[in-house]
Amino acid sequence: MEERVAAQRVTFEGPIPLEESVAIEEPLEIHINGQPWVTTMRTPGQDRELALGLLYTEGMLADIVDVDSIVIDDNVVLITGQIAIEGHTRGFVRSSSCGVCGRASLDAIMARHPPAISTEGFSIDAISIESLLIRLRAEQAVFDSTGGVHAVALFSDQSVITDLAEDVGRHNAMDKIIGRSLEQLPLSDRGFLLSGRVSFEMVQKAVMAGSPCIVAIGAPTTLAIELARQHGITLIGFARESRFNVYTGAWRLRD
Amino acid sequence: MEERVAAQRVTFEGPIPLEESVAIEEPLEIHINGQPWVTTMRTPGQDRELALGLLYTEGMLADIVDVDSIVIDDNVVLITGQIAIEGHTRGFVRSSSCGVCGRASLDAIMARHPPAISTEGFSIDAISIESLLIRLRAEQAVFDSTGGVHAVALFSDQSVITDLAEDVGRHNAMDKIIGRSLEQLPLSDRGFLLSGRVSFEMVQKAVMAGSPCIVAIGAPTTLAIELARQHGITLIGFARESRFNVYTGAWRLRD
Repeated sequence: MEERVAAQRVTFEGPIPLEESVAIEEPLEIHINGQPWVTTMRTPGQDRELALGLLYTEGMLADIVDVDSIVIDDNVVLITGQIAIEGHTRGFVRSSSCGVCGRASLDAIMARHPPAISTEGFSIDAISIESLLIRLRAEQAVFDSTGGVHAVALFSDQSVITDLAEDVGRHNAMDKIIGRSLEQLPLSDRGFLLSGRVSFEMVQKAVMAGSPCIVAIGAPTTLAIELARQHGITLIGFARESRFNVYTGAWRLRD
Repeated sequence: MEERVAAQRVTFEGPIPLEESVAIEEPLEIHINGQPWVTTMRTPGQDRELALGLLYTEGMLADIVDVDSIVIDDNVVLITGQIAIEGHTRGFVRSSSCGVCGRASLDAIMARHPPAISTEGFSIDAISIESLLIRLRAEQAVFDSTGGVHAVALFSDQSVITDLAEDVGRHNAMDKIIGRSLEQLPLSDRGFLLSGRVSFEMVQKAVMAGSPCIVAIGAPTTLAIELARQHGITLIGFARESRFNVYTGAWRLRD
């Protein structure tokens, strides 16, 4: 996930040579049924989960049982199975931070009939968030050394972190987690904890995963709030250990 | 660029209603010669510059004189002219943070014969960087209120900020600046100052603009360093007022 790189640290006293840990960004090619589909920039590791999570959140893979084979060869993932590539662009490149690339239109994203978000059984409070943030910080191994990756964690409403992924692209980290959880969907008893900001595509992925809650350290965008509201997801931003903002779905807050 | 949104601030004492400024994220459709090309998520404003900068950095538009007309209608930009759409994917959606979407392959990105980066005349030192960071902070109007946008500034080697753009997507902010500078290319006497991290596509855009220097507050990725090295761009990361790291091109540092 990281590489040692020779650099210079410069201060007003002048430059000093040093070795820095840098987050790895490399292209991953995903081929579907023998055809190249996408080249995506990502941090290597959990490529199987990334590919499966991406296909699922793009609405191209309905169920893990529809995958016949998945072979990983260096920076290439070859997948065969019942995958709906129709209506999706093929043979393109996407950056390490692109979450909605390759879809034919925005309407197509909205109309993919995701699972309904459960309105029962999941709640959150200020003490849980404080505890989650402390745990996230402790588990963000690559960020600590490189300062260059996003973390996405999955948590229970007992504020236990049950999974965590890191990647130069925040949507990749989320796809890795969803790819690993395909047999447990919908994630109606799990929230997503994000180290960064919340844009449209992060909420869209939570919608596809059926999760009722997003807690982010960063700011949300207008469209992220709107999508969360439409789907009944609780959206929390600017989460700090002693305070946070609730943008929608405040009824899931416990006293 | 921002919208007031009703939210709740929660502390251990309980929730308080408040109004928050949130960065606007909205889809922009770009049509080329009557055909839809891409729907991109961005912060509204400077849509003309964003579209032109994107077409240029994608290698689809060689020169501003090749544009016959450009019409902006709400969230749609209609462009006609001599634009090389061949080899580029059409009719897709990209997120607010995607910088290399829609290209046929990574090789295609690398092989677009960008201008050679000048090895003369541009230098930088620790005092300039300190001064640039202070100025960037003062000019980042939307970030101050929303915490949710990236800023990209253009600066001279006298450490004067000559242009600045903000957007929920960092590559959009860079495209807005490049789109506004199309008549001044190559930008051999200008550096880019980035409020965030440096991934592959940010360096690729600097390469296309012919700029010799990138100074970022965030971390670079391995591929960003590699591309900067290949093109002779000075890449500085983790820039703070009293120190910074130089990853490649340290020969442009002045004492």
